[in-house]
Amino acid sequence: MIELLSDGSVTSPKGFLAGATYCGIKTGGQDLSIVFSEVPCAAAAVFTTNKVKAVPILVSQEHLADGRAQAIVVNSGNANACTGDDGYAKAAETTRMVAEKLGIASADVLVASTGVIGVPLPIEKIRAGIQNVVLKRDGGHQAALGIMTTDTHPKEAACSVALGNATVTIGGMAKGAGMIHPNMATMLGFITSDALVEPSFLQAALRRAVDVSFNMISVDGDTSTNDTVLVLANGLAGNEVLREGSADAEAFENGLQRVATSLAQAVVRDGEGATKFIEVRVAGAASVADARLAARAVVGSNLVKAAVYGSDPNWGRILAAVGYSNAEVDPGLVDIIIGGVALMRAGRIQPFDKAQVSSILRQPDVFIDVDLHLGQGASTAWGCDLTEQYVVINSEYTT
Amino acid sequence: MIELLSDGSVTSPKGFLAGATYCGIKTGGQDLSIVFSEVPCAAAAVFTTNKVKAVPILVSQEHLADGRAQAIVVNSGNANACTGDDGYAKAAETTRMVAEKLGIASADVLVASTGVIGVPLPIEKIRAGIQNVVLKRDGGHQAALGIMTTDTHPKEAACSVALGNATVTIGGMAKGAGMIHPNMATMLGFITSDALVEPSFLQAALRRAVDVSFNMISVDGDTSTNDTVLVLANGLAGNEVLREGSADAEAFENGLQRVATSLAQAVVRDGEGATKFIEVRVAGAASVADARLAARAVVGSNLVKAAVYGSDPNWGRILAAVGYSNAEVDPGLVDIIIGGVALMRAGRIQPFDKAQVSSILRQPDVFIDVDLHLGQGASTAWGCDLTEQYVVINSEYTT
Repeated sequence: MIELLSDGSVTSPKGFLAGATYCGIKTGGQDLSIVFSEVPCAAAAVFTTNKVKAVPILVSQEHLADGRAQAIVVNSGNANACTGDDGYAKAAETTRMVAEKLGIASADVLVASTGVIGVPLPIEKIRAGIQNVVLKRDGGHQAALGIMTTDTHPKEAACSVALGNATVTIGGMAKGAGMIHPNMATMLGFITSDALVEPSFLQAALRRAVDVSFNMISVDGDTSTNDTVLVLANGLAGNEVLREGSADAEAFENGLQRVATSLAQAVVRDGEGATKFIEVRVAGAASVADARLAARAVVGSNLVKAAVYGSDPNWGRILAAVGYSNAEVDPGLVDIIIGGVALMRAGRIQPFDKAQVSSILRQPDVFIDVDLHLGQGASTAWGCDLTEQYVVINSEYTT
Repeated sequence: MIELLSDGSVTSPKGFLAGATYCGIKTGGQDLSIVFSEVPCAAAAVFTTNKVKAVPILVSQEHLADGRAQAIVVNSGNANACTGDDGYAKAAETTRMVAEKLGIASADVLVASTGVIGVPLPIEKIRAGIQNVVLKRDGGHQAALGIMTTDTHPKEAACSVALGNATVTIGGMAKGAGMIHPNMATMLGFITSDALVEPSFLQAALRRAVDVSFNMISVDGDTSTNDTVLVLANGLAGNEVLREGSADAEAFENGLQRVATSLAQAVVRDGEGATKFIEVRVAGAASVADARLAARAVVGSNLVKAAVYGSDPNWGRILAAVGYSNAEVDPGLVDIIIGGVALMRAGRIQPFDKAQVSSILRQPDVFIDVDLHLGQGASTAWGCDLTEQYVVINSEYTT
């Protein structure tokens, strides 16, 4: 039983505190957030696949080697990327300052940064900021504000999951999407839980949750140097420890996926210049991997995105994207359905009412179904439309 | 010795005739072209990798099985894609009609189509058109007009190559770029030569020429269902037969690459909404394959393209694209140079004059150099900027 919590945040689970402050890196708004668990946590993470990785990722990877952590510190306004040894030393120093404030080991502090790249991290501002952050039981919303860059609103989600012997809570916050925010880049996601979870299962469950959530969204196809999703689980819910294959593991993992998916969708809804949310559901693929390829190709196609913006039922662009996705495709079997109206069945165009489908496409949420009729593989991806405003934002931004 | 021919076309080589007519498929302009060699030719082709292939490709593949052909027929305005058995029969019928007109075997006629997809090919219009086409010795420019869809101008190139015992000529024409022309899709390229060439070498040389030309351009990352590059070589130049590794093979292949590259560049210069041409040169990669990945990632990045449009020296987007390209990258070694000005050396940002680099970026041709300092792999890719006009064109287009 998963129940979504309205007004949930990273402090919804038991034993988590959070807070944020303005330390002067961004121009206005909170720019430094800390999330803290009163007790040590199982910890897991998924980082960017970009070969150019920001230094905070290197530090967090080291601190995660034992699968344990207790706090997360995030600054916005400076990505601490392309900053070399100096940046690395400052990221490590940031974890030491947080450790000192909280009375824990620096190896139990994870660090993430987002903002401009190639600019030295102003470590003295961060030092002062860390001292100023007030951690509160209900500080989750504050923390969600402190990680924003050009996001237009904070992104949070939480749910409770009834397990056999206890109810656990999962909370999360996120910002950005891919490289939608050039130089102000980065998709960051932070998830907390009071569940008792074995670290290896937590890592596996997070990987799977990210695969069906954050890895299924696209704003512009650009992968940031700083992308990070972290999860902390402190065990205060009193449940029996969750392991791969244990009784309640699946229920917990479903909850984790629910929070991750909700955050991922919030990220694309806030895509730069976006006016519409697009959900692409691929079924009947030869494998799940193929379904993922096809769904991501459609949701990532500039031409499909521009057609959705223009409310044009352009099935040809959808079919072409499926065709170049590298998924196995038999063009003579494909169904394409927009908002419940079949435009193509078994590879043949169906007579349809263009005015009706255009009207469906003028809704803020657009649903595209593709059935490949080759097997049981299914997957869903999310994205947004491509607008003139996206180009304006990304061409007028000045380095 | 390669000499570019001004005003060259597919009829520049000896023994080729061409012509075009308006048969009523497009709204205005020529829409049916034929290219014919007076004698049989060695023939080779490269087709779209899209798994959804238009039926003319299937017919041409069969007719190319013996490596010989003598004529090419192309219609614009209707792509004959997603048209099933009916479309296949009509593509085959088109080759029969041309064969009858020219007194050759239909198996020596290749066929290509571009335009709207999913609409039955109007075969009677094509029949009348084929009868009306007048083939001329100087008909190359006419043929280049007949293959255009939303192209703003025809794209042609030709060169002569002095071989040991003869001078051969290579001519070509192209249209479109990837899926820049939604439903009016397709990149088509047709190359002719009077060189005497063994078919297997012609195919290998074409594959290599396409790899460094048409496969290195990107307008929007969408791969059409109809992409085709064909080459016919009729041997009338009197050279010794060119084989893999034979004395003049390299000179011929260089000429072929020169024509293919010139056509490919013309295609991106005519990209939808484009205001600037972008050349990305990657050097120092661990392999040529890596250099290709990196160059294509940079030239294909929406964010890099939008930055070029806005004349913003945004090295961070270039570095990020290299990082996610799957090429081997050591961020601490990378140089990034825009228009000759080094913005990054060995992974560190260099002090540079922003006004100067912005001024360089306001030129119509933008050159981006990336040196990975890992090996000898080098490659060049070409593209165009991303503008509001691209979005307008692709959202206002109506299916």
